Amino acid sequence: MTVKVAINGYGTIGKRVADAVAAQDDMRVVGVAKRRPTYEVRTALAKGYPFYTVTEENRADFKKRGLEVAGLLPEMIEAADIVVDCTPEDVGAENKPLYAKAGRPVIYQGGEEAEVAEASFNAAANYSEAWGKRAVRVVSCNTTGLCRTLFPLYRELGIEDVFAVMVRRAVDPQDAKKGPVNAITPALKVPTHHGPDVRTVIHDLPIQTMAVVVPSTLMHLHAVAVRLKKDVTAKDVLALWERTPRVRLVDGGEEVKSTSHVMELARELGRPRSDMYEIVVWRDGTSVSGRRLYYYQAVHQESDVVPENVDAIRSMLKSEDDGRKSIARTDKAMGIPAPRA
Amino acid sequence: MTVKVAINGYGTIGKRVADAVAAQDDMRVVGVAKRRPTYEVRTALAKGYPFYTVTEENRADFKKRGLEVAGLLPEMIEAADIVVDCTPEDVGAENKPLYAKAGRPVIYQGGEEAEVAEASFNAAANYSEAWGKRAVRVVSCNTTGLCRTLFPLYRELGIEDVFAVMVRRAVDPQDAKKGPVNAITPALKVPTHHGPDVRTVIHDLPIQTMAVVVPSTLMHLHAVAVRLKKDVTAKDVLALWERTPRVRLVDGGEEVKSTSHVMELARELGRPRSDMYEIVVWRDGTSVSGRRLYYYQAVHQESDVVPENVDAIRSMLKSEDDGRKSIARTDKAMGIPAPRA
Amino acid sequence: MTVKVAINGYGTIGKRVADAVAAQDDMRVVGVAKRRPTYEVRTALAKGYPFYTVTEENRADFKKRGLEVAGLLPEMIEAADIVVDCTPEDVGAENKPLYAKAGRPVIYQGGEEAEVAEASFNAAANYSEAWGKRAVRVVSCNTTGLCRTLFPLYRELGIEDVFAVMVRRAVDPQDAKKGPVNAITPALKVPTHHGPDVRTVIHDLPIQTMAVVVPSTLMHLHAVAVRLKKDVTAKDVLALWERTPRVRLVDGGEEVKSTSHVMELARELGRPRSDMYEIVVWRDGTSVSGRRLYYYQAVHQESDVVPENVDAIRSMLKSEDDGRKSIARTDKAMGIPAPRA
Amino acid sequence: MTVKVAINGYGTIGKRVADAVAAQDDMRVVGVAKRRPTYEVRTALAKGYPFYTVTEENRADFKKRGLEVAGLLPEMIEAADIVVDCTPEDVGAENKPLYAKAGRPVIYQGGEEAEVAEASFNAAANYSEAWGKRAVRVVSCNTTGLCRTLFPLYRELGIEDVFAVMVRRAVDPQDAKKGPVNAITPALKVPTHHGPDVRTVIHDLPIQTMAVVVPSTLMHLHAVAVRLKKDVTAKDVLALWERTPRVRLVDGGEEVKSTSHVMELARELGRPRSDMYEIVVWRDGTSVSGRRLYYYQAVHQESDVVPENVDAIRSMLKSEDDGRKSIARTDKAMGIPAPRA
Repeated sequence: MTVKVAINGYGTIGKRVADAVAAQDDMRVVGVAKRRPTYEVRTALAKGYPFYTVTEENRADFKKRGLEVAGLLPEMIEAADIVVDCTPEDVGAENKPLYAKAGRPVIYQGGEEAEVAEASFNAAANYSEAWGKRAVRVVSCNTTGLCRTLFPLYRELGIEDVFAVMVRRAVDPQDAKKGPVNAITPALKVPTHHGPDVRTVIHDLPIQTMAVVVPSTLMHLHAVAVRLKKDVTAKDVLALWERTPRVRLVDGGEEVKSTSHVMELARELGRPRSDMYEIVVWRDGTSVSGRRLYYYQAVHQESDVVPENVDAIRSMLKSEDDGRKSIARTDKAMGIPAPRA
Repeated sequence: MTVKVAINGYGTIGKRVADAVAAQDDMRVVGVAKRRPTYEVRTALAKGYPFYTVTEENRADFKKRGLEVAGLLPEMIEAADIVVDCTPEDVGAENKPLYAKAGRPVIYQGGEEAEVAEASFNAAANYSEAWGKRAVRVVSCNTTGLCRTLFPLYRELGIEDVFAVMVRRAVDPQDAKKGPVNAITPALKVPTHHGPDVRTVIHDLPIQTMAVVVPSTLMHLHAVAVRLKKDVTAKDVLALWERTPRVRLVDGGEEVKSTSHVMELARELGRPRSDMYEIVVWRDGTSVSGRRLYYYQAVHQESDVVPENVDAIRSMLKSEDDGRKSIARTDKAMGIPAPRA
Repeated sequence: MTVKVAINGYGTIGKRVADAVAAQDDMRVVGVAKRRPTYEVRTALAKGYPFYTVTEENRADFKKRGLEVAGLLPEMIEAADIVVDCTPEDVGAENKPLYAKAGRPVIYQGGEEAEVAEASFNAAANYSEAWGKRAVRVVSCNTTGLCRTLFPLYRELGIEDVFAVMVRRAVDPQDAKKGPVNAITPALKVPTHHGPDVRTVIHDLPIQTMAVVVPSTLMHLHAVAVRLKKDVTAKDVLALWERTPRVRLVDGGEEVKSTSHVMELARELGRPRSDMYEIVVWRDGTSVSGRRLYYYQAVHQESDVVPENVDAIRSMLKSEDDGRKSIARTDKAMGIPAPRA
Repeated sequence: MTVKVAINGYGTIGKRVADAVAAQDDMRVVGVAKRRPTYEVRTALAKGYPFYTVTEENRADFKKRGLEVAGLLPEMIEAADIVVDCTPEDVGAENKPLYAKAGRPVIYQGGEEAEVAEASFNAAANYSEAWGKRAVRVVSCNTTGLCRTLFPLYRELGIEDVFAVMVRRAVDPQDAKKGPVNAITPALKVPTHHGPDVRTVIHDLPIQTMAVVVPSTLMHLHAVAVRLKKDVTAKDVLALWERTPRVRLVDGGEEVKSTSHVMELARELGRPRSDMYEIVVWRDGTSVSGRRLYYYQAVHQESDVVPENVDAIRSMLKSEDDGRKSIARTDKAMGIPAPRA
């Protein structure tokens, strides 16, 4: 059976989820919805996605530009088995009644409050928590990044505590309006919300975070300090991550020294939209002294959550009960290499 | 017959030329050469390109990282029908004796002085000038950009004079070392060399230029003022460009308002490395008043010259005598849409 | 007699106009007005400027932070001989009835439409046009920059036509919210409004302009091409600018190569707020060939219009009938060197 | 007695040390030395500093530009009671024989290895360690920043351990050549050297650090997590810093939200070169939970070490035995407000 997926919101995340869903052999895109007739609509139509608008006014704007509209948002929801809400922060919560009315299960993104859904989700950490749920939230790009590398440490080695500083890219690459141009802005409310957000997935992880925004568009970069419960070496930790899906190790000695090189690597890999779905950890930036582990990781905020959305669909619709198998299936379809066995 | 192409230098241009050559059905890559064992070597080897190094020392560095080396640079040149030199600025000229010794025809890039070659080249403007030549220079990204949009005006309408200001991106996206971070730097020697450089292709074009460098990595942006010899409308000019290969018209009304949106468009188009081979001109940024034409164009410095290299090969090796046909063939293989007939 | 000046708006321009007025021996600041209790209020109070707020609510906000409020905006206007409106773009026009009601003459800034006032103003170009007027607009930073260097050429040599491309800083240095972070944005409506704006001051100057926004905060940079009516040398033009007030020549050979160096020069000169009131022209970026003149100029958008506001006060209130004398007086008080005699 | 101070190197730090020394009533500048005849030489000569060059060739270059030279470097050293070496990183160590030969005491900057000197120095933390020494190193801007806020915590409350992530500005504001333009670069060798460097001053402080470089020019920003030995409140900690010299508390609620606002505040304060000598800590970015303290601080890399150099002179030359008194004297002369008593 092919699951019919609708995507509400065709921005940074929505357009990627659409393509990721389209790449799976057990799912198809029955529609995408968007308000404004931008250049991205043209390329989406060329891919064959039926386009829905939110209002009749939107529909008229689309028609003026010769862009075909399949219908309005409620019609799209009706046509779907599940909806992935990829609207901007806090708009997802506003859409809730719409999905409820149609009786469709829905996936929200990490910009929403955890309360919007029955469970928060990261495929490797808590796949089964989404099992059969009607509303699930895929956690944010930063939280996804922290879960990916911390969960295997937590499960295999035990974690005493974590302190992470998130150095956040200011805006996504296409944005030409928001800044800062030349400033570093701390998130003054400390510890930041990222710690509690990780705990919506790994419920008892003692983690504290701080964050700053910097004038870059490419990736977030995390500096993470972990106190482990066991003595290990850096080599052990790296080996553990090599066996972890959606984590990629890179090497400053091969000139991957900056987020710009990580993005260039994604281009070289021939990824769609030059995306890096994996959380990228530097081998030579990982250090263990006693039980203290220090590492840097780069998070591609535009794309790391995309495969998680696909897995969430399978868990919610009970189409695959083994999270590992869902991850492997998603990743194969998306060209993400399997971890070392 | 399949032309055997070797690429010396596997940086921004070299790696793209390799892929573009590999995509043609009348050419193949017999080798690429590079000094340092960076992450880009891994992805290149995965594509099946034989890797050559420059020195034995380089070869040892590659081996240390487990990267297979096919041989040294002179062996690669020997194995090829033609070499595309994609080494850094001014290194091409130093390599000249090497190519001469092996008796191989060679294409240089625009970072070299015009004197390095027998002709400078832009496929649409002077394809036949490279015919049978042993050394040809594909002009720089900026000059290519100016030739693309000015040549049809020059041929169809006549040009009284041109003044262009190039707002140059500071570095390519992967660069993490060079700046400026927050400054605008004028090219003090005015008029800049770009005018004379355009005249290496369109020999009698009266064009003057100035240039500044700005803290952006994505694209160059040109502001161009042309005095035409005929009365036309903006619509006429836009229609002319629609019939011109490798020129793409975009629309601010569809939210393509900045170089960042142009790059995002390239991602949406599914281009390899998210490249925009075409020179991008804004419909709603093009204005004619009397015989004066004003327009903006965006130049993707990493990729616009790449298809030109492919055409130069065909002209030099006399494998296709019609420039238009070579352009069409190159573009089809690279996924660049054909102009309106 | 000391002129009582009130400044409505204490942002980038307002705070500088306040200090410039305070530095003159024929003027004093009777009040500054601002809505929000930011850190800048503390430093302003320390300078002894009476602070007025716009609403009672504002006043309460100030009080909560322990910041003294002298009264509300209408009281400040009442207390003044003249008001300098330094509110954000388009707010000035909204304030017009307020000033009219109090019967106070007013100076607007260049963000307002020319129609807001009886005359647009640049001290060197049309000092006498503001004579006795009740509402005058000091033109914008870019227009001021163009007037400063073009007017002497226009008067002494005659100008056939001008084409200028403005490479605009995106935001002022303190801004941490607006971008772009990494993009170049053309002003699509071409020719841009700057040409007509220059003509509000130099009424018959044939000038066309284009503009782009870039991710820098420091200064605008103009690339200007002028066709003169007389044969001259670059040396003649530079000598003319040396005799022009508020124009500063710099030299790339002394390492002033970028807007960042110009700003550093302002720091070295010990200027308040490290401001550069003069329009900065590069000696070695100025070139003449035939009657064509090319030059670059850097415009400090935060401060170049500030001395113009002071002169406008004198012209409007008829306290000095010789523009040159007013300029000299203003500049001496502000530490701007006199031009070569 | 007035101490005769020579400054070798007239770059970012050197020019500020010169002005800070000149502002003291117990010191005077007998010379500054620099290799290249840049614009900064002109403004320095205007301040009356005798200029020395390193080579005869330099001297000739200066003369060509009409810049007066007082002599060569060894003559300057001879004329001084003490030399402050402000040459670029690692050049200081090379200069060591020069100072030894002349038998002059010398202060090095934090770019040098600790071994270059007999002691590393921060006025508040270890003033007496420089007492009578012949070679002292003022620690780097980042280390100075960490010492300023950590030392009072260490002395008054006791510190269990510290983890700090330094988000470093890429280059100083005047630099127009170095980047990154759009990337975040981690310092891969972790923990970074900053921890051991702090221990050259606070010898037994358990501190680990990581660092990233970001595309900004204004200030470094530190995110610091401290485990204290005593239970305190955030209010206690803030009160402690209020009594600490060269620490300034700011408030996001008054719109100081980013490093750009901190720099704007320095402009409003009328500081020379718009410098912020104090380490800036956000009141509302400081949080205590149990014995864990989290705070952000901004470090003005161009200027925070400058007053430290002045104090080091007094300690080395035994002209003031009370560090607190030296700090107060230095700060009064430089316009830095005294801490709360």
